[in-house]
Amino acid sequence: MTPVTVLGLGPMGRALATAFAAASHPTTVWNRTPGKGDDLDATVADTAADAIAASPLTIVCVLDHEAVRSVLDADALTGRALVNLTGGSPQQAREMAAWAAGHGIGYLDGVLLNGIVGGPEAALLFSGPYDVYQAHRITLAALGENGTYLGEDPGRAAGFNVSLLDLFWTSMSGVVHAFRLGAAENIAATEFAGYAKVMAGLLPELIDVVAEHVTANHFPGDASTIASAAAILDDVITTVQANGLDDSVLSAVRSAVRQAIDAGHGSAGFTRLAVP
Amino acid sequence: MTPVTVLGLGPMGRALATAFAAASHPTTVWNRTPGKGDDLDATVADTAADAIAASPLTIVCVLDHEAVRSVLDADALTGRALVNLTGGSPQQAREMAAWAAGHGIGYLDGVLLNGIVGGPEAALLFSGPYDVYQAHRITLAALGENGTYLGEDPGRAAGFNVSLLDLFWTSMSGVVHAFRLGAAENIAATEFAGYAKVMAGLLPELIDVVAEHVTANHFPGDASTIASAAAILDDVITTVQANGLDDSVLSAVRSAVRQAIDAGHGSAGFTRLAVP
Ligand SMILES: NC(=O)c1ccc[n+]([C@@H]2O[C@H](COP(=O)([O-])OP(=O)(O)OC[C@H]3O[C@@H](n4cnc5c(N)ncnc54)[C@H](OP(=O)(O)O)[C@@H]3O)[C@@H](O)[C@H]2O)c1
Ligand SMILES: NC(=O)c1ccc[n+]([C@@H]2O[C@H](COP(=O)([O-])OP(=O)(O)OC[C@H]3O[C@@H](n4cnc5c(N)ncnc54)[C@H](OP(=O)(O)O)[C@@H]3O)[C@@H](O)[C@H]2O)c1
Repeated sequence: MTPVTVLGLGPMGRALATAFAAASHPTTVWNRTPGKGDDLDATVADTAADAIAASPLTIVCVLDHEAVRSVLDADALTGRALVNLTGGSPQQAREMAAWAAGHGIGYLDGVLLNGIVGGPEAALLFSGPYDVYQAHRITLAALGENGTYLGEDPGRAAGFNVSLLDLFWTSMSGVVHAFRLGAAENIAATEFAGYAKVMAGLLPELIDVVAEHVTANHFPGDASTIASAAAILDDVITTVQANGLDDSVLSAVRSAVRQAIDAGHGSAGFTRLAVP
Repeated sequence: MTPVTVLGLGPMGRALATAFAAASHPTTVWNRTPGKGDDLDATVADTAADAIAASPLTIVCVLDHEAVRSVLDADALTGRALVNLTGGSPQQAREMAAWAAGHGIGYLDGVLLNGIVGGPEAALLFSGPYDVYQAHRITLAALGENGTYLGEDPGRAAGFNVSLLDLFWTSMSGVVHAFRLGAAENIAATEFAGYAKVMAGLLPELIDVVAEHVTANHFPGDASTIASAAAILDDVITTVQANGLDDSVLSAVRSAVRQAIDAGHGSAGFTRLAVP
């Protein structure tokens, strides 16, 4: 089996090293702060350069882009492959790809979509040179059965990721805020959760509707219009304010809705907001 | 079967009248603008007062609170029951209840949670005097099998509703914004939808986690911390700005996250934001 190196042993890096070792890849690890890899079924290297030298393929998964730049050793990586699973922007991915190309490093940018590593539930995305992906896809399959290659643009995996994180974190902010509003209205968290799940459960179906309307460039307002969303948001914001809670996210949502109404889209469906 | 009156024949009012008629309740309808009830299996009254006089129970479902006040005839309603399924705030529901009590009208406030009327998928909430609910629950069951009575406080159904709408519309704003960001990153809507559904599909489980943490008043950050959410939001916002898109909702989310960090909760789980 191909040896693999993992740089960074936060929760994700540890899971990555564990998955490679479980798939019988001789695994070398390194972490800035020593001691984190001692319990893993892996060889702990003293330096990042030593770790990189041990394998044709290095995975880096640290806090952020700056941390990636500070741990990578260009000389050690030259002639080898690097897969960056650190979260970041498409721009950062493209910068890393340019840096790697300048040093003769085969570079793939990747994303751990749901933070799950290994097995059928993991969802990984990769983008960058196809030959690098081809050369390592079997090794990378140890990280999850559902790895998807998105194309040569190294920023593409991150582009998917930031768009999905936009959806996820905006939604999660709505979830936690709704619990606060519910509590202010004397609704116990467990009582609220059952209904909240039903509400959140509507989203996947509506996501298909958005895609359908965007693809057809047609935004029928028969189910619910932008104008009715504005009226609903007014009620919600009034109640949020009456309870002395922060209304800034909802007010920003309402502004976007009002802009669409001012632009003449009040009787279109809410899906109209998915296009400029 | 008990006769029922429906005031307001927008999409919801029409569905309500249709459901009552289908359940063999003699149904009387009225709408401000004439003509909308002509195709229904119902008697069309000339005035709201005439419609109210035809049944012991009147359902009102119009645009908003102001419209409710303008269509209701207190004298005609005295001694009868009124169920208000118009969307609104808990405060408006309590105002209506006080008005109704002052005129000897039995008042329930209700919510059509998902806009579905009739059958097993409809989700209706009611709050107000229990005796009024008891007297009409069988008639109201024609609107859906899953009617839930939430208690005597007439504002309670609306309290649930606005909290759920907070969750829903904040999330939907994230959905449509994510499609725009994806498009800016050259991701086709149909390609994006598949992943977006997976991401949205994480919410129901996380809603249970929020309820669990709130109930225990313990917000472990082992899966993901407020500080890491801030870092992720920075990446997303950078990319949104690089694409010239509106970042106001995400920036408002980030402010809330930063306030929590400033308050010393950076290493707590994101669920910590669900409490003051
Ligand atoms: N957790 C998740 O669910 C999840 C899901 C998808 C993607 N991700 C992404 O995966 C990456 C790793 O996440 P994580 O949860 O494993 O841990 P993390 O807390 O984001 O990062 C911890 C790792 O980064 C290292 N690090 C931080 N600053 C450094 C620096 N300046 N120089 C060198 N190393 C540095 C840490 O080393 P020390 O031990 O020395 O501090 C540790 O190895 C992040 O980019 C995250 O966005 C996480
Ligand atoms: N649609 C949904 O999916 C949904 C889901 C849950 C809850 N709701 C709530 O249900 C209620 C009704 O919604 P809808 O979709 O059926 O229609 P709507 O467009 O919200 O309201 C239309 C109805 O309101 C009447 N109306 C408006 N202004 C009026 C006024 N000043 N005086 C008298 N009548 C007036 C209209 O009469 P005219 O025909 O004369 O204009 C029509 O009967 C709303 O409060 C909405 O928030 C809707």
